[in-house]
Amino acid sequence: MATSEPRVVGKSLPRMDGAGKVTGTAVYAADFALPGMLVGKVFRSTEPHARIVRLDTARARALPGVRAVMTAADVPDVRYGGALKDETVFARGRVRYVGQPVAAVAATTREAAEAALAAIEVVYAPLPAVLDLDAALAPGAPLIHEEWASYTAIPILHRDGNVCNRARIVVGDVERGFEEADRIFEHRFRTGMVHQGYTEPRAAVAAWDSSGQVTVWSNTQLPFEVQNTLAEILQMAPSKIRVVVPGIGGGFGGKLRVGVEHFAAFLARATGRPVKVITTSEEELTAAYPRQGTVVELKTGVTKDGRITAKAGRIWFDTGAFAGSGPGVASVATLVLAGPYKIPNLHLEGFAVYTNKTNCGSFRAPSGPQANFAVESQIDIIADALGLDPLELRLKNIVREGDEGPTGQVLNAVGLEECLRKAAAAIAWNDRRPARWRGKGLACGWWTTTGGSSGVYVKINPDGTVALNTGAAEIGTAALTGAAQVLAEELGVDLADINVVSADTFSTPFDFGAQGSRTAFAVGNACRAAVDDLKRRVFALAAAQLGVEPEACRLADKHVLADGKRISLADLARLSQQTGGGLIAQGTFIAPPTAYDSKRVDGHVYPAFHSPSFHAHAVDLSIDPETGDVTIHKYVVAQDVGFAMNPTYIEGQIEGGVAQGLGQALSEEIVYENGRVLNPNLTDYKMPTTLDMPRVETILVQHPSLVGPYGAKGVGEPPNIEPPAAVANAVASATALRLTSLPITAEHIALALRDAGT
Amino acid sequence: MATSEPRVVGKSLPRMDGAGKVTGTAVYAADFALPGMLVGKVFRSTEPHARIVRLDTARARALPGVRAVMTAADVPDVRYGGALKDETVFARGRVRYVGQPVAAVAATTREAAEAALAAIEVVYAPLPAVLDLDAALAPGAPLIHEEWASYTAIPILHRDGNVCNRARIVVGDVERGFEEADRIFEHRFRTGMVHQGYTEPRAAVAAWDSSGQVTVWSNTQLPFEVQNTLAEILQMAPSKIRVVVPGIGGGFGGKLRVGVEHFAAFLARATGRPVKVITTSEEELTAAYPRQGTVVELKTGVTKDGRITAKAGRIWFDTGAFAGSGPGVASVATLVLAGPYKIPNLHLEGFAVYTNKTNCGSFRAPSGPQANFAVESQIDIIADALGLDPLELRLKNIVREGDEGPTGQVLNAVGLEECLRKAAAAIAWNDRRPARWRGKGLACGWWTTTGGSSGVYVKINPDGTVALNTGAAEIGTAALTGAAQVLAEELGVDLADINVVSADTFSTPFDFGAQGSRTAFAVGNACRAAVDDLKRRVFALAAAQLGVEPEACRLADKHVLADGKRISLADLARLSQQTGGGLIAQGTFIAPPTAYDSKRVDGHVYPAFHSPSFHAHAVDLSIDPETGDVTIHKYVVAQDVGFAMNPTYIEGQIEGGVAQGLGQALSEEIVYENGRVLNPNLTDYKMPTTLDMPRVETILVQHPSLVGPYGAKGVGEPPNIEPPAAVANAVASATALRLTSLPITAEHIALALRDAGT
Repeated sequence: MATSEPRVVGKSLPRMDGAGKVTGTAVYAADFALPGMLVGKVFRSTEPHARIVRLDTARARALPGVRAVMTAADVPDVRYGGALKDETVFARGRVRYVGQPVAAVAATTREAAEAALAAIEVVYAPLPAVLDLDAALAPGAPLIHEEWASYTAIPILHRDGNVCNRARIVVGDVERGFEEADRIFEHRFRTGMVHQGYTEPRAAVAAWDSSGQVTVWSNTQLPFEVQNTLAEILQMAPSKIRVVVPGIGGGFGGKLRVGVEHFAAFLARATGRPVKVITTSEEELTAAYPRQGTVVELKTGVTKDGRITAKAGRIWFDTGAFAGSGPGVASVATLVLAGPYKIPNLHLEGFAVYTNKTNCGSFRAPSGPQANFAVESQIDIIADALGLDPLELRLKNIVREGDEGPTGQVLNAVGLEECLRKAAAAIAWNDRRPARWRGKGLACGWWTTTGGSSGVYVKINPDGTVALNTGAAEIGTAALTGAAQVLAEELGVDLADINVVSADTFSTPFDFGAQGSRTAFAVGNACRAAVDDLKRRVFALAAAQLGVEPEACRLADKHVLADGKRISLADLARLSQQTGGGLIAQGTFIAPPTAYDSKRVDGHVYPAFHSPSFHAHAVDLSIDPETGDVTIHKYVVAQDVGFAMNPTYIEGQIEGGVAQGLGQALSEEIVYENGRVLNPNLTDYKMPTTLDMPRVETILVQHPSLVGPYGAKGVGEPPNIEPPAAVANAVASATALRLTSLPITAEHIALALRDAGT
Repeated sequence: MATSEPRVVGKSLPRMDGAGKVTGTAVYAADFALPGMLVGKVFRSTEPHARIVRLDTARARALPGVRAVMTAADVPDVRYGGALKDETVFARGRVRYVGQPVAAVAATTREAAEAALAAIEVVYAPLPAVLDLDAALAPGAPLIHEEWASYTAIPILHRDGNVCNRARIVVGDVERGFEEADRIFEHRFRTGMVHQGYTEPRAAVAAWDSSGQVTVWSNTQLPFEVQNTLAEILQMAPSKIRVVVPGIGGGFGGKLRVGVEHFAAFLARATGRPVKVITTSEEELTAAYPRQGTVVELKTGVTKDGRITAKAGRIWFDTGAFAGSGPGVASVATLVLAGPYKIPNLHLEGFAVYTNKTNCGSFRAPSGPQANFAVESQIDIIADALGLDPLELRLKNIVREGDEGPTGQVLNAVGLEECLRKAAAAIAWNDRRPARWRGKGLACGWWTTTGGSSGVYVKINPDGTVALNTGAAEIGTAALTGAAQVLAEELGVDLADINVVSADTFSTPFDFGAQGSRTAFAVGNACRAAVDDLKRRVFALAAAQLGVEPEACRLADKHVLADGKRISLADLARLSQQTGGGLIAQGTFIAPPTAYDSKRVDGHVYPAFHSPSFHAHAVDLSIDPETGDVTIHKYVVAQDVGFAMNPTYIEGQIEGGVAQGLGQALSEEIVYENGRVLNPNLTDYKMPTTLDMPRVETILVQHPSLVGPYGAKGVGEPPNIEPPAAVANAVASATALRLTSLPITAEHIALALRDAGT
């Protein structure tokens, strides 16, 4: 690491992908086109649970312009998935949710493809459908997957009928903890299913070449994951599958898994032509991978002075007809349920539960908003009941430097108290009820910086610029700008000198992918490793040129300096092209394992938070008592980011995360009735617009992580976690009503006020 | 290097790019297309030398479908080039050859583009033209470039007016050598201008993105060279220029330099749309980079028993209106003029000379056929005059192991005698005149394995397959198959497990490019270096898994083996993705410098042959005395390849090289009259077809090089060198007539027979 004052890291430099995006000229996967390309479309189930009695595609196949119609009969009979392999490409004999793919078509135009969809004939025999968590968990409930026990799953999962994982943390003795408490609080919370709301729909183009290799241009966040999943689905070696990410118009976890890539690949193989598949808004809202709706039950024991002695909690995730990310999300949820608090006795469980709905996936801080909404709402309820200041109650219980996390990990770089105090101060917390129908709310939390491994290749070009070759995709967070800042800093060049080549499973090294707030963190660290490797080569060459010892060399200002002499990186790169294959290096990073007490966990995919971040949100809002409308006067986020690699883009991440969080808090829900989505369009599914957004004040707290580059922690997901709880607490403060179900719409507030007679 | 019996190297395994090519499904640059792409065309001079009095594009611009018309006024005023920067994108005020670009157009269709070309109005004022070497070198000759002295050139060049380089080798005292001789022979030879005859014309597609970066898909042999030249031409940083080679339908040196890429790039920038430019056959034969026509004068002194005491030689290259590759070609020519012989006194000069013709470039073994034709024709003339067997005369003078080359390099792995003896034996040399009008000819030579540097990245995929990331392009020689064989051998995997990603200036490491018979040699060696790097990582990981020492590990059969235990590369790669960024490595290679005596050379770009190869060709043919038609009964090539990496593809290279060599020998010439090409089409420019080709017998001699992988030497260029001399010698043997001008067409033979009265 550079020892002098940083020149590049920590600066709000313009993002590398910015110009194209703001001018509308950037190419996204949805824009990507090839000559002769066909349009692919998916034919989807209209029944939540039914047997397929008849499926006839003959009429569709015969239509003009139609080049292929495929069903389960045309693809390998394999089950794929993440932790649990329960999915099929097309429904085989039985449909399990409205929106499940039953067939796919490729045609020369969109109109011809749509005509083909309309001409597919299917007859269903309905089966009893499981439409919510209660129904799924009821004794004698129909099984969504009768053959569940035969599915391949990672051994760690605890499965039982409609429960496709149960994860657990047990610490101390929760019953004894409740005995030590003066008061015990029990509450139940509910959250709705929400969509990631990315601007660009899922899109993929596939083309096969003569060697039997397929290239897929996709807007996936995880090209290597998609490569491996396609290998399972297509029954091919992954090395024959090239996944390239041309660009991504937002992902937020919704584009982690295979979406439409497999349809494009199958249709392209069948037709011998490139095929593009893009989803519609209706497909997005009925058949994507949204955030799971949940039910949470919390039982918390506290002493009368506010010390938490025990907590028992259960969170059930309605994960839909297939496991999707459910098993892992149920697992990480238990850490969120514990909260960033020192609690000696815990008994926390997360359940992923099948229902006849679309299968859910990952959404920015998966499980975070749901679990945090329950935990932080209950903290305020307890403070209210005990007559304590909610800030004081939190400060009395939060984790601090050197404390143990719920599973035994030792916490360091804990900036939580600073976040809480600064967020509270910024909304004048001590002046909490300045007006009638006005209230302030606080919520705090923690989150992980996902580990996983990253490799990079780095090459110095003959003009002294630097190519950074990474398997990670830029999903809009500017994380690759952050990683490039690390590279520029370490190499003594400018950010503008870095050129990123990314997200191509053939030409870039493996990367665990743009997920879990890890990209700048992990790719940045891999860059540091590459520079270590590169320096050896650069210094050896420079030393020979300058007549000095390699040990005397250092990098600065695009030069190697030694003993008062200097030579430019450009000159060295040119020289090396003549004398040694060019200046290239590789670097790899793997997050070091986090120690935890394995006896405390069970069924757990994520037993500890890695390089955790800490955050506090504070909101000042008013309620219109007639309409229930919420007006936010001020929204403050204080987030411990470890080190602010690029303050402007971290602020952007925080503002965006708050926008999504407020959507979940106040307006967004995919509403099901009888297994069908009532609002599968962007008119009825209400995401906040710019006009709905308050100004967000951002306070960057910096307790440097021991592992991250320059101390950076993951910053992308956390801002999404606390808004529901902060808003619920402020609404409670403004109305004296506690709403325990998300979203807290104006209608819900108005009805609650009417029911309460206020 | 593997110590056990090779499994992959040395085997005639199927080439990796074969299936697509034989099924017609491979994508070449000429096939490459993008949506919305425009057609670019070049408007070219019709005068060999003239002032542009008027150039009016207004009418062309106004035509329907025309999106851009560009002239010198629309592009930066820069001179670019290789060793000598004398070229401009478009003629500026003056044209210097018929075919020189004057303007370029982009339009929505080919027809619209052609209409635009027809609508460009130009008025020329002719200037005195220099139409051949004699005219260019005559005292008071008009200067092609009056401002030649102001051009940027590498300092090593000797320039003077129309001579843009003079390279020289001086050894011993040639005058004293002639005094020691019993006989002195002086001859003059002439060779015609020939085209490389690649199947696919030069083609490029360019597209700009919003960040001001341009991507050029081109069939260049040297993507990094094109990147750098485009940077000069476009006045941009090379790092903003991505050159990708989708595929190449043959190059043979004709696609080393910027061909149409710059037109595509300028037109795409001007129109905001992708632009594709492909050349026509007429453009190829009038305005590409063909092999230079030459005149050679040789003066050789020999003792009466056949020992060569001295040689003075001069070769003049008609390099056309711009230097092109001429300065370098004139340099390497002097080594070929020396011949693979021990001659104590040498005075050899090569001249690159401007004329008002298309500027010439590189063609498979540049200078080789021209100089060798002279040298080896004269050897036979001398043998005839002295009454010696031409084979014996050669064996008396050739270089052998440990001898010095002409510039003082010490030669090793010299398989020349074996080549000569085996080639001669294969055509029953001792039975030289079996019939009237039938004759046998021999010729031998040597050639370099071009050095330059190569870098590779290597990645083990989670299925145990391996990605080889190289900046070199596969130009049809199967050289990347050869390099991949090295990688497979060293890693203990199969060739089918290797996946090549190549020739992309952004995502692949620098490579000096597919030129000079170097690809398998240099990239193969870089692979060896990468495996050294990779082994450390692989063995460390395997040792930890197996509980053994890294030193105990070895690679075999896609596994690491140690102490009777084993773990697969696939398992290690998966593990490494979880625990360390994947198994990736880089490797670089630079040919070690060849020692030579710098006092012997002057104006020399290539002062010594690197890892030289040796070869002898033998031909048995008949002449039809009426028509002059030549029928080849047998053609034998004995080539010292060092190590036959893939015998089948080396045989393919040799057969192809002989085909091209026979074309030069017997039928091919770009014929100029008054500065205009008379035969600018593939009907009148006569390349041999399959039906014209004799069966070629190949004898692979293997004296392992000290540097090449497994001892391999460059094999691609040599087979092109000796055919003209071998054929000329056989024709002389059959007819007793010595033809000293190429091509030796049937017409020339018949006329010579008539003139001789035989």
